[in-house]
Amino acid sequence: MTKRILLAAAAALALPFPTLAQTAEQVAALRDDALKNDTLAWDLTEGLTTEVGQRLAATEAEKRARDWSVERLTALGFKNVHVETFRMPVWVRGDETAEVVGASAQKLAVTALGNSGSTGPRGVEAEVVYFPTFADLQAAPNGSLKGKIAFISHAMTATQDGSQYGSSGIVRRQGPSLAASKGAAAVLIRSIGTDYHRNPHTGVTSWPKDVKPVAAAALSVPDAEQLERLLKRGPVKLRLLVTPQFKGEAESGNVIADVPGSDPSAGVVLIGGHLDSWDLGTGAIDDASGVAITAAAAKRIMDAGQPRRTIRVVWFGAEEVGGFGGEAYAKAHARERHVLATESDFGADRVWKFTTNLPAGAESISGRLAAALAPLGISQGSEKAHGGTDVGPVLALGVPAIDLEQSGLRYFDYHHTPDDTLDKIDPAQLRQNVAAWTAMLAVVANAPEDIGPVAAVNH
Amino acid sequence: MTKRILLAAAAALALPFPTLAQTAEQVAALRDDALKNDTLAWDLTEGLTTEVGQRLAATEAEKRARDWSVERLTALGFKNVHVETFRMPVWVRGDETAEVVGASAQKLAVTALGNSGSTGPRGVEAEVVYFPTFADLQAAPNGSLKGKIAFISHAMTATQDGSQYGSSGIVRRQGPSLAASKGAAAVLIRSIGTDYHRNPHTGVTSWPKDVKPVAAAALSVPDAEQLERLLKRGPVKLRLLVTPQFKGEAESGNVIADVPGSDPSAGVVLIGGHLDSWDLGTGAIDDASGVAITAAAAKRIMDAGQPRRTIRVVWFGAEEVGGFGGEAYAKAHARERHVLATESDFGADRVWKFTTNLPAGAESISGRLAAALAPLGISQGSEKAHGGTDVGPVLALGVPAIDLEQSGLRYFDYHHTPDDTLDKIDPAQLRQNVAAWTAMLAVVANAPEDIGPVAAVNH
Repeated sequence: MTKRILLAAAAALALPFPTLAQTAEQVAALRDDALKNDTLAWDLTEGLTTEVGQRLAATEAEKRARDWSVERLTALGFKNVHVETFRMPVWVRGDETAEVVGASAQKLAVTALGNSGSTGPRGVEAEVVYFPTFADLQAAPNGSLKGKIAFISHAMTATQDGSQYGSSGIVRRQGPSLAASKGAAAVLIRSIGTDYHRNPHTGVTSWPKDVKPVAAAALSVPDAEQLERLLKRGPVKLRLLVTPQFKGEAESGNVIADVPGSDPSAGVVLIGGHLDSWDLGTGAIDDASGVAITAAAAKRIMDAGQPRRTIRVVWFGAEEVGGFGGEAYAKAHARERHVLATESDFGADRVWKFTTNLPAGAESISGRLAAALAPLGISQGSEKAHGGTDVGPVLALGVPAIDLEQSGLRYFDYHHTPDDTLDKIDPAQLRQNVAAWTAMLAVVANAPEDIGPVAAVNH
Repeated sequence: MTKRILLAAAAALALPFPTLAQTAEQVAALRDDALKNDTLAWDLTEGLTTEVGQRLAATEAEKRARDWSVERLTALGFKNVHVETFRMPVWVRGDETAEVVGASAQKLAVTALGNSGSTGPRGVEAEVVYFPTFADLQAAPNGSLKGKIAFISHAMTATQDGSQYGSSGIVRRQGPSLAASKGAAAVLIRSIGTDYHRNPHTGVTSWPKDVKPVAAAALSVPDAEQLERLLKRGPVKLRLLVTPQFKGEAESGNVIADVPGSDPSAGVVLIGGHLDSWDLGTGAIDDASGVAITAAAAKRIMDAGQPRRTIRVVWFGAEEVGGFGGEAYAKAHARERHVLATESDFGADRVWKFTTNLPAGAESISGRLAAALAPLGISQGSEKAHGGTDVGPVLALGVPAIDLEQSGLRYFDYHHTPDDTLDKIDPAQLRQNVAAWTAMLAVVANAPEDIGPVAAVNH
């Protein structure tokens, strides 16, 4: 070691640097206690999914969920617990049936996609036109689907990082409007899912202004493959009845709860998940577990002593149907200084990877984070953190991000189906999530570094 | 070896014993070809579940299945292919919904049990009375359930031999009538199943003459546990709507196809499965695979040269709803000499065990069978073969039996649910079944021994 380096080290030690509120040993102790003993995340997940059940955005059930949340978060000792409401368009499911007619008459398991149009009470009976992929539908001539039911298939493979949701999801998000623009009377897709159960996967589809919504629904994977087998034998005619309704505007809201920090100038650490769910299951993995994990971790930091930075837990409303809660939060809080925004919205299986998007001067946080998370089997990915639907609008303002990524290997077996229920949560893996979030918060909320703005990562 | 034994052995060799039509090597070759190359069982399973779909007894769909079967079995070269019809009472499913009312309002996934009564179109709204086990219901005082909805829970564990279907099944078969006899307005059970999907398991329940049928339905396992969690928090009121109908009598039938033997005096070997299915799935494991396995094996024996004994393949009608097909067959064919009766009605996972009930003088068949089945990973169980619902009435006449037992470890995940579909069939395991049945038929149909009557095994 040269004299020069020694001098530099001595100078660094002498800097008027804020004290690390928690040492690595203290972070480890908080983490390990969560891993061993946390029961709060389970209690919140169990309570919300049992006492409220499904929580479709802007419905009475989502309102009940907000009331439940305010009561629970207040009782847990969070400060400034309140609801910030906003208005949004409401879509509700109606009846939904599909059946093959003719010589192989049989029912198929189907569910409407969010924002689906209606067939009307008499349904649509029409021949099926089959598109093995989205590209095949793109290649179909305009007008060629007039009066037909378009059926777009697309097999999805389970991946640890959930990355196939991007390439598969386009079928659900854009397939119906594209088919409708080519004349389709109704549209069916193979569920965007990786299971073989007869519970179709819902999720939003969207309509450009110049395309009138038609009925758009998902077949379960077994039913999609059944329809493919029938189509191999010859033309198939289906009767589809899907009667959802657009109900105008109604109120949704974000539930907000703070752990006030000791240094208001150090900025807010924003964490959370979404309180709403699809209407088919009880939204256990999507996303009761996310709101529960983040609140349980914040509560552990709160109980360990006041952090430097305020930790704000937001349980967002109306994520599933269009990210209205995230947009509303970013708009209402744009002028507050956020120094981190991160969400949990990918179930409750083990966190296996973390990524960061931290500004110059704050990268040292990554190293402390890596050390704190390694004992949980979590290592750092090389790509930048990009958040999700709820914190996306805040991140777009240049707020730094850290992503704690759960394994997605079974997430799309249950995602947006009736099967998203409490029994899919593994308590041991849920505790590992709480441990990871607790460690992350202990490091970041107490980091002595200033955390400045960053260039947002597109996603 | 003593001189006396040597002489006895020489005498035995000199007996005018019928020649073994197939040597052990030939049996092995037939078995191994099935294991490697069989496609027929898959084709039949795929065809029946795809082209016909569900096949509820005594409905138009079951009639279509019989027509389909006669055409396929005739085309395959079976002789004497025909339908033997019988009449039976018909029960058909109606609407079915269940919802918690009040502060935790939410829908529960429910399906009517076969022979359920109806709530009428307005449903039943009543408080739930919870019975953790059948014994708890037995202990309830008469009249104590007046106007209530009884909920009987009972957790079932997956077992390789499927043995918990006996102890668990009583809840479904006798629970509703017992609760009704104590005044219950309607009855819910936890599905008799081992999965955690929101597809409830149907199956028959029965009503003694002095008990008027009430609505009787199964909750999926996740919903049953949800209801238990709600009941722990306080009284629960449910609204149940179940509107099945008894439709009087209609026609069902057995489909019969023979491989004629060379020695009519040697008796008939009866094999098969059931053609009907429950109405929720497409009846792939229950029991398209069973009819397919047995026909594919018989076809292999037919193609290898005429067997000594006639092999009769029966695809029974109306098994699920009360075993009407098996009863009708036994009545119609009571005077024919059957020397073996055995069925495949436990899915298409690997056969792991065989059992026999063979008479004195024919036990030597067991040894040859053990040798032929061992390479497939199948060994002999110590208990006696007892057949199943379809061949039961024939076995009760003193006909010998051999059971080829499939693994039941995942059978009750799908049994009687919408999830009983083609994708649950593993082609490699299906071929192992055909190999086992082919080996069994090669040994038994060509056995030189006389196969006399036995004492029937109760089950």
